[in-house]
Amino acid sequence: MTSNGNLEWRVNMGDGTTEILRPEASFMKNIMMRIKNFIWGGLLLKAWKFLEKAWGIANSEPKKAVHGLKVGLALTIVSIFYYMRPLYEGVGGNAMWAIMTVVVTFESTVGATFYKCVNRVIGTSLAGCLGIGVHWIAAESGDKFEPIILGISLFLLASVTTFSRFIPSVKSRFDYGAMIFVLTFCLVSISGYRVEKLFELARTRISTIAIGTSLCIFVSMLFCPIWAGSQLQSLTARNLDKLAHSLDGCVSEYFENDDDTEEMKNNEDEKNNNSKVEGYKCVLNSKASEESMANFARWEPAHGRFGFRHPWKKYLEVGGVMRKSAYCIEALHGCLNSEIQAPNSLKLHLAEPCKALSSSSSEVLKELSIVIKKMKKSTKIDFLVSNMNVAVQELQNAIKSFPSTQMEVSLSEQEEEANNEDHKAATTTIPPLMKLLPLATLVSLLIETTSRIEHVVNAVETLANVANYDSEDEKKKPSSSDNHDHNVAMRVFPEA
Amino acid sequence: MTSNGNLEWRVNMGDGTTEILRPEASFMKNIMMRIKNFIWGGLLLKAWKFLEKAWGIANSEPKKAVHGLKVGLALTIVSIFYYMRPLYEGVGGNAMWAIMTVVVTFESTVGATFYKCVNRVIGTSLAGCLGIGVHWIAAESGDKFEPIILGISLFLLASVTTFSRFIPSVKSRFDYGAMIFVLTFCLVSISGYRVEKLFELARTRISTIAIGTSLCIFVSMLFCPIWAGSQLQSLTARNLDKLAHSLDGCVSEYFENDDDTEEMKNNEDEKNNNSKVEGYKCVLNSKASEESMANFARWEPAHGRFGFRHPWKKYLEVGGVMRKSAYCIEALHGCLNSEIQAPNSLKLHLAEPCKALSSSSSEVLKELSIVIKKMKKSTKIDFLVSNMNVAVQELQNAIKSFPSTQMEVSLSEQEEEANNEDHKAATTTIPPLMKLLPLATLVSLLIETTSRIEHVVNAVETLANVANYDSEDEKKKPSSSDNHDHNVAMRVFPEA
Repeated sequence: MTSNGNLEWRVNMGDGTTEILRPEASFMKNIMMRIKNFIWGGLLLKAWKFLEKAWGIANSEPKKAVHGLKVGLALTIVSIFYYMRPLYEGVGGNAMWAIMTVVVTFESTVGATFYKCVNRVIGTSLAGCLGIGVHWIAAESGDKFEPIILGISLFLLASVTTFSRFIPSVKSRFDYGAMIFVLTFCLVSISGYRVEKLFELARTRISTIAIGTSLCIFVSMLFCPIWAGSQLQSLTARNLDKLAHSLDGCVSEYFENDDDTEEMKNNEDEKNNNSKVEGYKCVLNSKASEESMANFARWEPAHGRFGFRHPWKKYLEVGGVMRKSAYCIEALHGCLNSEIQAPNSLKLHLAEPCKALSSSSSEVLKELSIVIKKMKKSTKIDFLVSNMNVAVQELQNAIKSFPSTQMEVSLSEQEEEANNEDHKAATTTIPPLMKLLPLATLVSLLIETTSRIEHVVNAVETLANVANYDSEDEKKKPSSSDNHDHNVAMRVFPEA
Repeated sequence: MTSNGNLEWRVNMGDGTTEILRPEASFMKNIMMRIKNFIWGGLLLKAWKFLEKAWGIANSEPKKAVHGLKVGLALTIVSIFYYMRPLYEGVGGNAMWAIMTVVVTFESTVGATFYKCVNRVIGTSLAGCLGIGVHWIAAESGDKFEPIILGISLFLLASVTTFSRFIPSVKSRFDYGAMIFVLTFCLVSISGYRVEKLFELARTRISTIAIGTSLCIFVSMLFCPIWAGSQLQSLTARNLDKLAHSLDGCVSEYFENDDDTEEMKNNEDEKNNNSKVEGYKCVLNSKASEESMANFARWEPAHGRFGFRHPWKKYLEVGGVMRKSAYCIEALHGCLNSEIQAPNSLKLHLAEPCKALSSSSSEVLKELSIVIKKMKKSTKIDFLVSNMNVAVQELQNAIKSFPSTQMEVSLSEQEEEANNEDHKAATTTIPPLMKLLPLATLVSLLIETTSRIEHVVNAVETLANVANYDSEDEKKKPSSSDNHDHNVAMRVFPEA
């Protein structure tokens, strides 16, 4: 009996398999089954996977789903203008432009919506005026010259405006406006209407566009607004946290490599840990999104704790120096998988100061993240930076206090060990300097990372000053900043 | 006498300055002068600077200017459709849609234009069909339910489609199409027309959009076409060259630092050199542009040496591994400015092998750049890679051959020198291990870079195989690839 209740005959073949006997009539049925299977297995499975993915996105970033609903809402509202007859007759067939404006200018962040709306209104108005002017001149100059004047002006204006979209300052602020400018200019200057009719047309079109843009701005700001500025802020804070975890993770992984890799191998913790260690990769790839967010944030009105002229560019500077630290951490991550291992005695000697340094630097990064998240100057940061500098000093002392003679001894011990193993595993000795390479690299990359983190501290401090972050305690500041300067000096000239 | 020929009286003031006596009547003149100065000095200067910048862009990238001219041309042609009365009456007022299509879908690369045109046509057709269907259902179900059905269907469709634009697979291929889909659906389903009239409307609108899109594709492909694919290819090749120059520049700068910094300081050469050394920064920042180019290149028809299914994604993989090498070079660049310098004897000992390694690795990168530029497999690349591996081996040998006792001696020499200087400059000794740090870092980053370059070689080889690059000489390949494998093995297990 098969699963769908039909009887079937099986014949035992010579090679031990069985073959099912089917009547010829079921040939078509067979084909139908296959098509059915194809549809179920192929297309529906794909569709199901697609839906699952979409569900995953909606779950992890509900803001995106909210944006979809907001667009639906705005369009439904504007379609009332279009659908209801009294209103429809009021704005005429131009109501189409209100719908078009909503579809085209409604973006996921408030800033982007503002940018597009402002660009659309300015572009349409400017091009409308210019178009009417050119149209009038062409109409006045007689039937012969009219098409020539129109053609040449159109060609020149379209070429120049399109080219201007490549100029960075235009591209970042008026890219969309330039496109709308060309579009409106074409439609107005070429249209067969007389100038008086054009004014009437321009009036209704601009009023419908105004309806569309104001509705967009209204809906995007009132229902769960998504501010580009807040997103930039939280991205920066999150990236600082990720850097801190990566740095900590890399160093502790390097020094714990030998002891517990075996136990950790099949562990969930390790996977978690790995994703934490590789958080720096997000920082490496966040340049483009940071720039577009900062670009849109400029268009946003004052909201929450962000004033009108909040220095968004400073966030980009923080992002830039953060990325420099991330490059260093990437190189540091490369040290983890080196085949050559430093002599154990040296590794043990340096493990503590290295871990101390990495944890104190990641403390600094975490504090900076809190500064940006809470928009409050930190009283602790100077203390943490000086802690970090002390840790650098201690690491340098540890290197110094490891006398070269002892290094010699420990290295030759290692050599002997290796020689002994030679008889079993046929490995030859690794010379002293070679063995030092990875550890030396780790240490100096760690120190380099620290100095880059100090640039991040400076960038965040500049941001906090320019953006007028609240300070928790005004009185403590001068003395601790002196202290900080002193510590920087100590780090740069360690022997001073 | 002033410059404009008027007499003026000066009065000597008590504090030694002079004050000019003016008649009261010239007050207005003065203000006019100031406004004039403001216009000339402020606005016109800004405009002049802007024009200069634009001219610079047009000069350095004439393709951008050409794109402007192409848009102008396409718009002038399409406006003929709109302007000429016979044609105008033929396609009706819908000719507007042809102009709109040209303005909106004409992009600078052929691929991007194709992407937008195909999306526009598909989106419009699909939404048109669906819109007419929904419109019919709503009209059939009576006056009461009509607005409800229309409103709900519009809300659902707009929300779902807008949300789907966040799903990566939709975003990369159908982002624009989804927007057009929502737009057309709204316009069609809400319109007050009867279904028969809608069919007529849809027919003319789709035909005008077809005119617009075919004109766009025609102009963008026939007049100096700018292919996204070729741009991706040349960007990849250029980035490989830049990496090679950076690597070479960093290492030679490190070892030549002491001798000729003074002479080079005020030299034009140095500036040039610096921009070459910092070429890796371009590689670090090229991810976004590579991705968008690869995305558009998929839409391009076969052209030149690129077949229809050219593996554009493989270029992204090459870009990815290239960026990993760039991270390493960035860290290496950080070593250049270290305050602690390695003992001279050690530096001298390692200078030659380091330079040899960097020049052999940059040879590999340059050869890869030629492979991609010419789309021809290289017979030299295996030889160059084995050269690079030999150079790694030699650097390792050089480190080994520097006996630790001699290191000890040279280090203590340095210490003594430092001690002697102590009396003059009050610097204390820097201990042996500390002094080694920057050089050890440089060496191991250099070796790490080499191993990452080997990944680049593999990625380019995969690309060459998948894209069926011509091979210069088929016979030589098997033996040399064996040789290559052997060399890789040597590098990974240096003591094998």
